[in-house]
Amino acid sequence: MTVKKTYPRDLETPCLVLDLDILERNLAKMQAAARDAGKDLRPHVKTHKCSALARLQIDAGAIGVCVAKVSEAEALVGAGFDDILITGPVATTAKVERLVDLVAAAPSTMVVIDHPGNIALLDAGLGARRLSMDVLLDVDVGLHRTGARPSDALALAGQIVACPRLRLRGIQAYAGQVQHIRRYEERKHASRRCLQDAVHIFRELQASLPDCAIFSASGTGTFDIDLAVPETTELQVGSYVCMDTEYLEIESAGNGSLPAPFDPALRLLTTVVSANHDHFVTVDAGLKSLYRDGGTPQVIAPADGAWTYDWFGDEYGRITRSDDSALPRLGDVLELVTSHCDPTVNLFDHYYLTRGDRVTGRWPIDLRGCSQ
Amino acid sequence: MTVKKTYPRDLETPCLVLDLDILERNLAKMQAAARDAGKDLRPHVKTHKCSALARLQIDAGAIGVCVAKVSEAEALVGAGFDDILITGPVATTAKVERLVDLVAAAPSTMVVIDHPGNIALLDAGLGARRLSMDVLLDVDVGLHRTGARPSDALALAGQIVACPRLRLRGIQAYAGQVQHIRRYEERKHASRRCLQDAVHIFRELQASLPDCAIFSASGTGTFDIDLAVPETTELQVGSYVCMDTEYLEIESAGNGSLPAPFDPALRLLTTVVSANHDHFVTVDAGLKSLYRDGGTPQVIAPADGAWTYDWFGDEYGRITRSDDSALPRLGDVLELVTSHCDPTVNLFDHYYLTRGDRVTGRWPIDLRGCSQ
Repeated sequence: MTVKKTYPRDLETPCLVLDLDILERNLAKMQAAARDAGKDLRPHVKTHKCSALARLQIDAGAIGVCVAKVSEAEALVGAGFDDILITGPVATTAKVERLVDLVAAAPSTMVVIDHPGNIALLDAGLGARRLSMDVLLDVDVGLHRTGARPSDALALAGQIVACPRLRLRGIQAYAGQVQHIRRYEERKHASRRCLQDAVHIFRELQASLPDCAIFSASGTGTFDIDLAVPETTELQVGSYVCMDTEYLEIESAGNGSLPAPFDPALRLLTTVVSANHDHFVTVDAGLKSLYRDGGTPQVIAPADGAWTYDWFGDEYGRITRSDDSALPRLGDVLELVTSHCDPTVNLFDHYYLTRGDRVTGRWPIDLRGCSQ
Repeated sequence: MTVKKTYPRDLETPCLVLDLDILERNLAKMQAAARDAGKDLRPHVKTHKCSALARLQIDAGAIGVCVAKVSEAEALVGAGFDDILITGPVATTAKVERLVDLVAAAPSTMVVIDHPGNIALLDAGLGARRLSMDVLLDVDVGLHRTGARPSDALALAGQIVACPRLRLRGIQAYAGQVQHIRRYEERKHASRRCLQDAVHIFRELQASLPDCAIFSASGTGTFDIDLAVPETTELQVGSYVCMDTEYLEIESAGNGSLPAPFDPALRLLTTVVSANHDHFVTVDAGLKSLYRDGGTPQVIAPADGAWTYDWFGDEYGRITRSDDSALPRLGDVLELVTSHCDPTVNLFDHYYLTRGDRVTGRWPIDLRGCSQ
């Protein structure tokens, strides 16, 4: 399908655009990195919220996908996916019932456990339906968001193993707190240090439980660092596919400076809707179209670096000059790299797809709003 | 329809809830304030994004509604509404075409103009369809977001009047920059001062143009202040219906202290999903469910003031103790007042409705994502 011939002026704004050439390069790079290290890729769909894009990731070689919420898994199972890992624990009877429905429909569905309460709920929910499921032990490696304390992990693993409805397949160890450390060497040392406890726990489990074969970890900031840890078996990376200024601002390996190994495939288009001042203009993307979080949004077209975006209320942004260049004019369309891709993607219902200067189609962001 | 008998534990989280008793009191209070001042109410739907709620506002006496975007107006016209004011200027041919389609379907649709470029675009778009429409002159009263400079306003009004396809019906003067000034007297003086230019412009226009009868202004922070300005004819208030901590934190008239004249009808429910630490627990509402903007979200139930919410990534929040009280337990549901209602509402597809301790139904947030 070819929607429009010109890009980006003919797209209504604000809207999200995915550059397919860049997207495919990002997918291939990450898949090759995992393959070369002899590891698996289980990309996190919470970033892009799009089953069509998840399908590309599977087609490129991913062994499955991660989601953060049960409702995201429901949408993916409805779209024909399996091998889904839910990376957050479930803590209520109602959510367990939804999860058990998922296991009935897609028996390969996995969930993490970080508390004895999860085991009790899952045992009751699965027992009522005479089902069983694979689970990972969620180990807190310093983020302190979810995950069992390392000192409690082996005891919790024992409780999981004692529950006949749960098959302990390995561990999850997500070090979200180190992903955006700017200096590469500093990030590397931090990630290595915080994964040590998880490595010990994983070795202990493997020594007695041969089915305990998954060590799921990492993010876009530490993918290469964590691939070099012998015990890790799969990457949970998410943002690499879209990218944002928050990740573009961290240093990559080798040269200790930019550019990052992945390029920004995701862009936001916004139009100048008011131009009555000498030093700034107003554009049509504000809090509700470009989530105020993460780095600084970067205006990359039509001029790269000449203008600065800042939020200006729910529906508007302000564009100021970074130098003496002229301001954009009323009706001009600007292209931005978003500051934090995940929550911005969640504000839209579809991506427009581009290849070169052509818009070639659009994909529904069909997991948008799946927050439960 | 009665969905569930108990509230809030049986609702899946994260979700938004509207307390109908409070909502109706807020609607009635604002309508009465306008009526007692002999003015009209044209509430801003950008806050709640819900045609069912807009219908309640009309039924309570509002003369029409405001929206920020053309796509919001399209959704409302599709739901059977008319008398819609689009409070932002249109600046592209494509958007004007959508606007002209709206005028064809709902001839009472109004839009604001703040630049000669708007006039040229509208003249071309309306001319091609042999249509005409009502417009307001958007006057910048210090927010510097949209709006003509006061010194340019009368000249721009002259250009509008010279365009036979545009009927100038009055002015819009939104002082967003003063709405959240904490001290009431300070806010009052600021609002009075910044509306002065608009008052002069409106008087000038009225002297020569008898059809120029609308002075649309104000917000929840200055509704009573602006009702006392003789020239204003209608209020564009939005947040009063839902409320949030950003507006609850400003002082109201009279006592110079809280409480605000409107109560929080909108609440966010979130569940404890991880509880492995002594000083905090993790809940299932993060950036994607509770927009990080505005004031501080307030945990009001089951205990009011004992716990503090902070964002903890895309899908999670952290609850800490404000005092020596116990933390909530795994699976517990908390009720929060949001920090900035508008962008948080835009993250959800429906509201659950409650009356007392019963959930009585739900309303689609049918304008959610209408950002164009």
